Amino acid sequence: MAEGNFADRLMAEVARKRSQVVVGLDPRLERLPADVVGAARAETPRGAAEAMIRFNRAVIEAVAEHAVAVKCQVAFYERYGCEGMRAYAAAICDAREAGLLVVGDVKRSDIASTAEAYAAAHLGGAPGAPDFVADAVTVNPYLGADGVRPFVEAAAAAGGGVFALVKTSNPSSVDVQDAVCDGRPLYERVGSLVEQWGEPYRGESGYSLLGAVVGATFPEELAALRRLMPHTPFLVPGFGAQGAGAEEVRGAFDADGLGAVVNSSRGIIYAWQQPPYREHYGGGRWREAVAAAAADMRRDLWEATH
Amino acid sequence: MAEGNFADRLMAEVARKRSQVVVGLDPRLERLPADVVGAARAETPRGAAEAMIRFNRAVIEAVAEHAVAVKCQVAFYERYGCEGMRAYAAAICDAREAGLLVVGDVKRSDIASTAEAYAAAHLGGAPGAPDFVADAVTVNPYLGADGVRPFVEAAAAAGGGVFALVKTSNPSSVDVQDAVCDGRPLYERVGSLVEQWGEPYRGESGYSLLGAVVGATFPEELAALRRLMPHTPFLVPGFGAQGAGAEEVRGAFDADGLGAVVNSSRGIIYAWQQPPYREHYGGGRWREAVAAAAADMRRDLWEATH
Repeated sequence: MAEGNFADRLMAEVARKRSQVVVGLDPRLERLPADVVGAARAETPRGAAEAMIRFNRAVIEAVAEHAVAVKCQVAFYERYGCEGMRAYAAAICDAREAGLLVVGDVKRSDIASTAEAYAAAHLGGAPGAPDFVADAVTVNPYLGADGVRPFVEAAAAAGGGVFALVKTSNPSSVDVQDAVCDGRPLYERVGSLVEQWGEPYRGESGYSLLGAVVGATFPEELAALRRLMPHTPFLVPGFGAQGAGAEEVRGAFDADGLGAVVNSSRGIIYAWQQPPYREHYGGGRWREAVAAAAADMRRDLWEATH
Repeated sequence: MAEGNFADRLMAEVARKRSQVVVGLDPRLERLPADVVGAARAETPRGAAEAMIRFNRAVIEAVAEHAVAVKCQVAFYERYGCEGMRAYAAAICDAREAGLLVVGDVKRSDIASTAEAYAAAHLGGAPGAPDFVADAVTVNPYLGADGVRPFVEAAAAAGGGVFALVKTSNPSSVDVQDAVCDGRPLYERVGSLVEQWGEPYRGESGYSLLGAVVGATFPEELAALRRLMPHTPFLVPGFGAQGAGAEEVRGAFDADGLGAVVNSSRGIIYAWQQPPYREHYGGGRWREAVAAAAADMRRDLWEATH
């Protein structure tokens, strides 16, 4: 259990490390380096889990000084069943030991009595097990206030945070999120609700422990939502492999360069497979490529926002 | 991997068993009977998992002849971490061995490349592990078509099904789902999208393998959505403990009493703790109360729809 408001902790880390970078630990077995997969060769769930654990440890070591947090996308672990979930628990442990905050990217949602069970699973504070307890989690707001409240209350009790999906980075996010409701897109309605639901949970930084997920791939919407939700910290995915750069995410930040953190997954953890790193980090130097990509992203973001 | 279209399989089971009942396997440790919790007393995640496994086995045995499917709410397992997920995998196995279809109530959602990993986890058909693979899963539609499509494609390949949330049973479902968009509530827009997304996946029954979750607690909306989505099978939660009875869910069914299945969790699996069963099934006779509650629900639904 951590002390204080999660938004305050997050902003303090951003200021201390001069970094707004979140690294997505989304291990896809088919992209892992040969020296990590090794003999296990991923033929069994246990082999896959062991390879993911080794890979994550190396990535965590490479990015620890450049990032403020990691975001673990649970889907990539769930696909390997019980063994995969063991690797998910290990990722949370290993990242924390390296001094990184951990966002469990679980996008859970359910009716109140069930959301309480999810909140216990991923934020702690109620009978259960600590395996999947992260510093913050992502939630899906489609069920409304009583599906989000149990997460916020659990987070408040545990010193954790919550990021509710508002405008996601994928092309089809327009299908539902851009429906025009009472003269404005649905994501603005959801954004206003999130700002309102988070009001009682603001810290000394002015930000609430209830944050929002807003994709980097829609820069105008991102800037508009920043204005609409001045007390809501943003977790911004879609940087790098999904196409957005530092210029596109500038609108997520406040005048002090605070109020948001930006996630890159594939662009960092597979940096050695892509330009511009592929040319410079051949052979077994993939760890250096990962560190360089995180360092470059940190510098680009900081310069664009200061 | 099952043969044929999931909607056809589901409707055939409904007709064969003369039952539209889905039993929710949502074990809450504090409500389990003493003879099941036993010495383990739930002090450890392993003890909790063992108690859940024993309880589920007894419930499955009691309801197997009265129900067509069980719905496993993964939140109640996730809260016990890796051990809890082992109990979730066991619930799926045990229900299948008893001849029941299994709905994994996971309400997952993510962008396309991640949704593929979730689909592999919960519907199978791609490298991963079989632990969590069910016959059908629930998904959250907030991310739009590309967040749902990977589930539908995986289901089509595996003979499985998908139920997308349209109108949920909780009071706050109005917050987002009832936003008025272009003159109609958002849940109708989502309902139309689901009907459309499912069109290429219709079986001989006329129903698609892509179904919808529509709560029993909003009977008028339920009947309106039935008319709007004539080829979409409904999974209807909210029966029993959440307040709805057979009369409230009648609108979910077509003229042949097909097209929908109705879930009850607490009303069945804790029947012996509640009227009218509490009076008649004292002492250690809780298994009989569970069986009686499932049988009564089956009869009430069948009579209301035939």
